[in-house]
Amino acid sequence: VPTIAPRFTLGALAEALGATVDGDASRVVTGVAPLESAGPDDIAFLIDARHGDAARASRAGAFLASPDAGALPAPALRCREPQQAVIDLLLLFHPRPTTIAGIDPSAVVAGDARVHPTASVGPLAVIGAAAIVGRDVRIHALAYVGAGVEVGEDSEIHPHAVLYHDVKIGRRVTVHAGAVIGGDGFGYVFDGRRHRKMPQVGTVVVEDDVEIGANTTIDRATLGITKIGAGTKIDNLVQVGHNVEVGEHSVLVAQVGVSGSSRLGRGVVLGGQVGVADHVTVGDGVMVGAQSGVHADVGGGAKLLGSPARPLMQAKRIMLTWDRLPDLVRTVRDLERRIAELERPGGARHEGRG
Amino acid sequence: VPTIAPRFTLGALAEALGATVDGDASRVVTGVAPLESAGPDDIAFLIDARHGDAARASRAGAFLASPDAGALPAPALRCREPQQAVIDLLLLFHPRPTTIAGIDPSAVVAGDARVHPTASVGPLAVIGAAAIVGRDVRIHALAYVGAGVEVGEDSEIHPHAVLYHDVKIGRRVTVHAGAVIGGDGFGYVFDGRRHRKMPQVGTVVVEDDVEIGANTTIDRATLGITKIGAGTKIDNLVQVGHNVEVGEHSVLVAQVGVSGSSRLGRGVVLGGQVGVADHVTVGDGVMVGAQSGVHADVGGGAKLLGSPARPLMQAKRIMLTWDRLPDLVRTVRDLERRIAELERPGGARHEGRG
Amino acid sequence: VPTIAPRFTLGALAEALGATVDGDASRVVTGVAPLESAGPDDIAFLIDARHGDAARASRAGAFLASPDAGALPAPALRCREPQQAVIDLLLLFHPRPTTIAGIDPSAVVAGDARVHPTASVGPLAVIGAAAIVGRDVRIHALAYVGAGVEVGEDSEIHPHAVLYHDVKIGRRVTVHAGAVIGGDGFGYVFDGRRHRKMPQVGTVVVEDDVEIGANTTIDRATLGITKIGAGTKIDNLVQVGHNVEVGEHSVLVAQVGVSGSSRLGRGVVLGGQVGVADHVTVGDGVMVGAQSGVHADVGGGAKLLGSPARPLMQAKRIMLTWDRLPDLVRTVRDLERRIAELERPGGARHEGRG
Repeated sequence: VPTIAPRFTLGALAEALGATVDGDASRVVTGVAPLESAGPDDIAFLIDARHGDAARASRAGAFLASPDAGALPAPALRCREPQQAVIDLLLLFHPRPTTIAGIDPSAVVAGDARVHPTASVGPLAVIGAAAIVGRDVRIHALAYVGAGVEVGEDSEIHPHAVLYHDVKIGRRVTVHAGAVIGGDGFGYVFDGRRHRKMPQVGTVVVEDDVEIGANTTIDRATLGITKIGAGTKIDNLVQVGHNVEVGEHSVLVAQVGVSGSSRLGRGVVLGGQVGVADHVTVGDGVMVGAQSGVHADVGGGAKLLGSPARPLMQAKRIMLTWDRLPDLVRTVRDLERRIAELERPGGARHEGRG
Repeated sequence: VPTIAPRFTLGALAEALGATVDGDASRVVTGVAPLESAGPDDIAFLIDARHGDAARASRAGAFLASPDAGALPAPALRCREPQQAVIDLLLLFHPRPTTIAGIDPSAVVAGDARVHPTASVGPLAVIGAAAIVGRDVRIHALAYVGAGVEVGEDSEIHPHAVLYHDVKIGRRVTVHAGAVIGGDGFGYVFDGRRHRKMPQVGTVVVEDDVEIGANTTIDRATLGITKIGAGTKIDNLVQVGHNVEVGEHSVLVAQVGVSGSSRLGRGVVLGGQVGVADHVTVGDGVMVGAQSGVHADVGGGAKLLGSPARPLMQAKRIMLTWDRLPDLVRTVRDLERRIAELERPGGARHEGRG
Repeated sequence: VPTIAPRFTLGALAEALGATVDGDASRVVTGVAPLESAGPDDIAFLIDARHGDAARASRAGAFLASPDAGALPAPALRCREPQQAVIDLLLLFHPRPTTIAGIDPSAVVAGDARVHPTASVGPLAVIGAAAIVGRDVRIHALAYVGAGVEVGEDSEIHPHAVLYHDVKIGRRVTVHAGAVIGGDGFGYVFDGRRHRKMPQVGTVVVEDDVEIGANTTIDRATLGITKIGAGTKIDNLVQVGHNVEVGEHSVLVAQVGVSGSSRLGRGVVLGGQVGVADHVTVGDGVMVGAQSGVHADVGGGAKLLGSPARPLMQAKRIMLTWDRLPDLVRTVRDLERRIAELERPGGARHEGRG
């Protein structure tokens, strides 16, 4: 697909982004680049004031920065919300690739699946019986959409993603490569001799505007649903157990594990490699630091750290005292000796001490 | 595939489950549902006595409960082992989907592979040279069965699962989507300049009745075999290194990692995100709490927690004392001061203290 | 593919490995096996002096050992670097399978992709527009090579691996099954109402001689590149975030997570399940113990352990003192009591104590 390289004047960009131009509005830029590697045809951006020196040393032909970011060595777009403006800037230079509607002849689509004519189904993708693929959906090569699955409009399913039967995917959802949605929950009952499998006959509902990272796994419910709330973003290699409910606009960083039947509120943020035990309720807006382990219910707004997780400030205080533990042990041993000496009948007050 | 909605009288269910009916045995139910969402056509179950209030408030048309679970607002099947009975109940309402024997025309099957006529091979699956697929096996769409692999009877290989060459899979094994069995073990020898790869020429043997979760990885042995014992259940995103042996009827919860050459006994339970170091022996029946790290051999029956893992009660005691550490540091500093005062020549006994 | 079973005299092996024969050089061996299971036709190897007893009890027909490994019950190849020699020995007995050049008729290759005539593309693999597949490359069944991807000569891409568009893979690289290279980095800006996605328009560069484990994920950069340095080895289920740079000859053990924009130096070793926070710099040769969490910059050569990670010796000292914490709390409480007693006006020196 031949593409035309984008070219924009700063004036045009300012109009698109709602920015003002500080300098020559007719300057043309053809790409976005980091401060360090930008050249005279690139626009670079300064979001974090700590990068001011890098900006002043940059060879960029133009900048995007906040109004109070100080003088810059080239014309600048000044925006009140420069981080938001960078998103718009990148979308201008890297528009979403146009997809060609239709089903690749090598894809295998069940006769009773309904694929919207504007949807795209890539090479060697599989669409199961009675599945529904909505308007403008992109099913990429080698993706698997099981029987009875629904994929809402404008969603994108990347190569090798697996949607087990009957899973429901909302609108504008992105499922990255290798993610598995709707595998069996992990439930067994030991009968004294062997682990008998509890049938996992529920499903998974992924609401609108969710993004699910590569090789992440979200299990179907035993009964009922495992739910990912609208607007939630899940990174790579995350595990979400059966019957879990994740609230809206939450963020699960890579390698998080949420055990069965736990409920996360709205706007929860779990740092990388965090574990949440089963049947735990985590309130709205809770933030949990990386590698922490949440074993009990947590009220809304809490900030937690550690395994087991504690309130953030307490956890930090504890971790600081760890460094003093070896000394503390020695000190206490010394105090014991000195007290025993003081207690000795007729015992000494040491001369020349203290 | 049109399916007939199941309909059972409580009497029929009681006979199938070996239960007694407490109430109207002619009542008909058409589904199983959780206490909270069950309607008058559903049977709900009460396993955990703590859910008694939910049961008494439930709109379910019938219940499954233990004989001593108290009065319930609708007819009930009473069973001595209600949790086991729920499995049978779910299997009655959700029988295993019938699979159509035969090889999908889009699958690619090597000429010398032997696929049993009762087996099912889905669309775009790949079966390599000399592979053997047993009676009643289901190889789902887009699964990869490498050269020389054997899959025992009644096993199920889900979409995108990968069985590298020569791996042996037992009977009634389930391999979930995206799991990778038989990738190279992680072994290198540094020659002063670079890491030289140790060839990984062993294989993996998965015994009967094992379940392997989505996107889990089990590496082939350097020499010999990596073995997963009969009846063992492995959750999603678990890593099992080369030459590991996992005993029978063990349970590895999501995101566990077992390093090379370690041996787990029979009936071992590793909680989520647990790590086991290499060349470690873990005895029969050992239980390890979530996020723990096992660095040394563990005798049979131990219960462990923490990183590094310690006996459970000791680990809990330690974690409780962490909360008192900041106070402890302050107290010791105060004691030091007071002892120095006591030691002072002619030193004070403080009036009015203690 | 019929293969001829290998047969070597010890004399021939000695010549190939640069070893000397201690015993009958005409003895023939047909396989390599571990000390415990080797039979009279096998050669076994003794690398670790602690396995001397196992070697002396072994039924192996021959051994490979260091010159100073002591007497052995069968002829032996003596090598100065036995561990290196084992690699060569295994390669002699298990030569790389010959691959048949050419594109399987079931693969889907874009018209403008360039696949070298010596490369092999397996069944149902997908090669996207304008991709370049180099000399002697093996693209296995069901692998996905996105548009604009380059795969350098002699590299191997295993089944179900996914290379998103424009990713660059060097020479002699191995990408194991299910690995995902070039998925979107995890970046959002909250606009007060929802998380807006930061477009991820950079890419991933994997340099020569890298190995990437099964189901590992390496995200593309927001802008610029995520880079894996030459000779680096990455185990299974590892997460590498956007804009990360991993230096040459580093080792990332299974389930490691490296957050966005962090830089690892040359020869860094991260143990299993280690987490590295974002924007952290880890110097050359740093070694981090399993399950540790690296939250701040680390100078070259450091050895770290713990979460948060501390210098190894300090971390070990701290972990040892944890075991004494419950006693320490009791001791301090006792000391407090005794000091209060000493401080009591006219207070006691206890008779018969100490």
